[in-house]
Amino acid sequence: MASISVPDPAPSPTEDAESIRKAVQGGTDENALIEILGHRTAAQRAEIAVAYEGLYDKPLLRTLQDELSSHFKGAMTLWAMDPAARDAKLAYKALRKKGGDRHAWVLIEVACASSPDHLVAVRKAYCSAYDSSLEEDVAACPLYKDPLKQFLVRLVSSYRHGGEHVDGELARAEAAELHGAVAAKKQPLHGDVVRIVSSRSKPQLKATFQHYKREHGKAIDEVLEGNRNDKLSAMLKTAVWCLTSPEKHFAEVIRSSIIGLGTDEESLTRAIVSRAEVDLKKVKEEYKVRYKTTVTKDVVGDTSGYYQGILLTLIGAE
Amino acid sequence: MASISVPDPAPSPTEDAESIRKAVQGGTDENALIEILGHRTAAQRAEIAVAYEGLYDKPLLRTLQDELSSHFKGAMTLWAMDPAARDAKLAYKALRKKGGDRHAWVLIEVACASSPDHLVAVRKAYCSAYDSSLEEDVAACPLYKDPLKQFLVRLVSSYRHGGEHVDGELARAEAAELHGAVAAKKQPLHGDVVRIVSSRSKPQLKATFQHYKREHGKAIDEVLEGNRNDKLSAMLKTAVWCLTSPEKHFAEVIRSSIIGLGTDEESLTRAIVSRAEVDLKKVKEEYKVRYKTTVTKDVVGDTSGYYQGILLTLIGAE
Repeated sequence: MASISVPDPAPSPTEDAESIRKAVQGGTDENALIEILGHRTAAQRAEIAVAYEGLYDKPLLRTLQDELSSHFKGAMTLWAMDPAARDAKLAYKALRKKGGDRHAWVLIEVACASSPDHLVAVRKAYCSAYDSSLEEDVAACPLYKDPLKQFLVRLVSSYRHGGEHVDGELARAEAAELHGAVAAKKQPLHGDVVRIVSSRSKPQLKATFQHYKREHGKAIDEVLEGNRNDKLSAMLKTAVWCLTSPEKHFAEVIRSSIIGLGTDEESLTRAIVSRAEVDLKKVKEEYKVRYKTTVTKDVVGDTSGYYQGILLTLIGAE
Repeated sequence: MASISVPDPAPSPTEDAESIRKAVQGGTDENALIEILGHRTAAQRAEIAVAYEGLYDKPLLRTLQDELSSHFKGAMTLWAMDPAARDAKLAYKALRKKGGDRHAWVLIEVACASSPDHLVAVRKAYCSAYDSSLEEDVAACPLYKDPLKQFLVRLVSSYRHGGEHVDGELARAEAAELHGAVAAKKQPLHGDVVRIVSSRSKPQLKATFQHYKREHGKAIDEVLEGNRNDKLSAMLKTAVWCLTSPEKHFAEVIRSSIIGLGTDEESLTRAIVSRAEVDLKKVKEEYKVRYKTTVTKDVVGDTSGYYQGILLTLIGAE
């Protein structure tokens, strides 16, 4: 479900590193950089980075930071990074920004929208890159207060079971617990909700949410969306989506980065770069159904230049 | 600081596997099993297990379970396991036993008394062996209630920073927070305490506890020990010890498994098997200072037969 296209056979890492070197010497050839890096997988980009540093004694990432500018630089450097290190960086930055609610999205995405093993890799990358651990920084972050903070800490600390096993009886019981807290008592981040959403496996949670809808007539995300002004409901909905249908969440991230006053390039870049090798194809389909337009059209309408170039390359054919 | 002795050079894994096979055919030769497995590192035992299964088409662990009995079987099978899988099993069993306070010790040990990377390995092993994740089972365990449950969940979910960096200002501030909760308000598992103890790196916590003692005249573990009847204080003290001086905790586990009515073989086995390759030498020194006797003497006085044999082998010269 990746959206990028990769030539087969691809040039060797050394050939790619040499082509990149040519593209950054003298006047920078941005299109060549897009053409190379925009069409390589994470594993290939990692090999290219090793080859590049071996040949030219300078990290590839540093070269991109030195040679590029503005949103194009932001997108290219994020894209060139190892996915776990990239998520660690996104989380690190999100924890240090004011006006935190939108930034809580980033933490929820990192914690919930990838595999349990990826989250472990992100936590290791975070510890390697910074003088603290991810959950330590979330727990100490002055931007968040309980119960949201507890919820975020538990999400970023989770290592969910990766198996497909589902306990139907448990799903029924926990659907009732969720309904009791969310719909009846309007406590979207009640202790039991936090426990269930932060610890159960994704297939188990899917079964629980299905029970919820069957028993109570309305899906839990619809109930939560109905509570428009309730920030905690919005956060829980984001987690529910990231856990069980991340394409819905990322379609919303892209759309909301485009509508409204000015473009929110940071969110747009984050969504496209971080999902291009995961599920951007599904995000594009979801986008069409929900917004009656395409990601491509919206990106073309709202961006320009090389920045648009790398985004469209990652978005792929549509 | 491992207490076991390993021959140099050791026999090849295949030779060891063949010797083990001989020792379990016909009448079991328990002493031969102790002689081989009791003098091999975890890495060597893993290689032997691979060789054994390759040669005889039966897992080594299953052979030990089939051929041995009673506490000797318990100790040998635990010892033969991969350390992360062993801790996962200990935690799994601890979560399913009534009279849970002593069992909470096991969870705290697993979470705090080894490296952050070891805990990640334990959590992976737990998910592989069982149909749930470690923190999921702790969070859903009916034996524990908040705030102890919250504390345990946070401990088993942690991935602390592994670096040596210490922030002195932070240590001072958090020592004051700890004192405010623990000594002044007598809330040993206050939210801030849980946050600090479950998320900060071990060197940072050491610095914080040093500040605590310097500022308030008494070490935090002494203050907590003073609250004799307070279960939460006892749990926090266990965590403090496991994080900063696990030898104190395991000396206490061994001692309390030996004194009192009858021997608590399960605890004795757990302490000796799980620390033999970590810090049992330090535990023995601590034991001498604190209890004016040696681990060896106490084990000789309270155990017998092959069970005593494997324990003394793991305890090593004294």
